[in-house]
Amino acid sequence: MKIRVDVVLREGVLDPQGKAIGHALETLDFKNVSDVRVGKTILLDVDCHDTKSAADQGRKMAEALLANLVIEDYTVEVMK
Amino acid sequence: MKIRVDVVLREGVLDPQGKAIGHALETLDFKNVSDVRVGKTILLDVDCHDTKSAADQGRKMAEALLANLVIEDYTVEVMK
Repeated sequence: MKIRVDVVLREGVLDPQGKAIGHALETLDFKNVSDVRVGKTILLDVDCHDTKSAADQGRKMAEALLANLVIEDYTVEVMK
Repeated sequence: MKIRVDVVLREGVLDPQGKAIGHALETLDFKNVSDVRVGKTILLDVDCHDTKSAADQGRKMAEALLANLVIEDYTVEVMK
């Protein structure tokens, strides 16, 4: 089973990587970009029997390792 | 308008970050994880008039800066 975990910086947390990308885009003449936010997508192949246990495991892995819960939010999606 | 650009390593390209996460998950007793791949999600606020020009600009930005076309694939999604 494939699990997709999307991790993004929480609203209000400064995103230096996003800022750097925004400046670089501006130098490449993309002048109409007002904000850039960067997140991570983690795709995991997991040996699970059902969608519910896969989603539970996704949340546990996100909270144990994949997301920094102080400054990041995450979403878990079980893909067939 | 908000554009979402997802960038992932092309199939077959070694993903050291994914490998490292896989090993870390194993030490945390998640023994049923067979593969881990890590990608980037870039969310851009763009001043565009219509969805088509936003999607075009998303592709141009991905090819100019956001994705390394030698080893990465990207998808562009225009969100309302």
